[in-house]
Amino acid sequence: MEYSSKLIEDAVNEIAKLPGIGKKTALRLVLHLVKEHENKTLALTVALQKLRANIRFCKTCHTISDDEECTICRSHRRDRSVICVVEETKDLMAIENTAQFSGVYHVLGGVISPLNGIGPSELKIESLIQRLISANGDMKEVILALSPTLEGDTTAFYIHKKLKDLPIKISSIARGVPVGGDLEYADEITLGRSITGRTLFN
Amino acid sequence: MEYSSKLIEDAVNEIAKLPGIGKKTALRLVLHLVKEHENKTLALTVALQKLRANIRFCKTCHTISDDEECTICRSHRRDRSVICVVEETKDLMAIENTAQFSGVYHVLGGVISPLNGIGPSELKIESLIQRLISANGDMKEVILALSPTLEGDTTAFYIHKKLKDLPIKISSIARGVPVGGDLEYADEITLGRSITGRTLFN
Repeated sequence: MEYSSKLIEDAVNEIAKLPGIGKKTALRLVLHLVKEHENKTLALTVALQKLRANIRFCKTCHTISDDEECTICRSHRRDRSVICVVEETKDLMAIENTAQFSGVYHVLGGVISPLNGIGPSELKIESLIQRLISANGDMKEVILALSPTLEGDTTAFYIHKKLKDLPIKISSIARGVPVGGDLEYADEITLGRSITGRTLFN
Repeated sequence: MEYSSKLIEDAVNEIAKLPGIGKKTALRLVLHLVKEHENKTLALTVALQKLRANIRFCKTCHTISDDEECTICRSHRRDRSVICVVEETKDLMAIENTAQFSGVYHVLGGVISPLNGIGPSELKIESLIQRLISANGDMKEVILALSPTLEGDTTAFYIHKKLKDLPIKISSIARGVPVGGDLEYADEITLGRSITGRTLFN
């Protein structure tokens, strides 16, 4: 693609570095910004710069936060005896949006993935253990809400091994057929897990 | 959607104002930027701010340009006797990428659209006429490459009426069945135009 302007080209190249955005979409966005008032571009860039300059991670659960401690960790209405372990902040947000969980979180910052050079020490696993020990018996359950991938399962297994001597219940979110999903389209592993992990009618 | 951080929320809202980007995509992009090094966000925002602060429009053809006159208008290899009239800079880029046109351009900045409050005076039509008159007989042809919509056709008709007393050929890009397109899937108007506008085998 030939651009009529170096400024356009630079902006397109920068936007196209974002995940899932190609050069065509980037050009559409750039031409939109050029057509709009300068204030709109300014508002966008200032929001991004502020975000990157001021973003912090909660000292307790390591989620993205505006302050030293996030709103969930500070809240008095959350059950501090149940801790949900997730990979990323986006998983925390997804669980929060279900409104089905009233405990607190712990964000690992990824999963164990030797291929990508990520070992247990790159993740916030030690911090999780310290948090459980310092809770001094007030912690009842750890829910592992990790991706159902090889890396996720490895991480879950590693955490389970580290925690098994503590008097804490460890659970994992249910794997099974999605709500509204058709049995015939579910893959064999998911369907198999939905049978081994079946729940009783009560 | 609940965000764990006001900074994230502000950035998501700004990105979601861009065309074709919803809140979910915006959140994905924001979390990507937070995860990457701060320099990446800086490069992106600086490119956008530079773009918006330094962008200019060619004084001759009104396309987006880095200088007072764009590279096409300055080039000595372009045929100045043929002028292609387009709506926006992106249409100019699209035609340039075909490498089938060696003349110069004129960017109107839109099409006549009374519903959106855009009349002929909001567009660069007067500037086109002045350009043709000042060419002093050196201009041979004006190609109208406008969208095949009601507004595009109205604009083409308006320009045609304005130019018809000048000794200049006025043409319009061919409408017809797309290359590789199947006749049975072409709409009736396009197919009709492809018949009335048929070309001779030579």
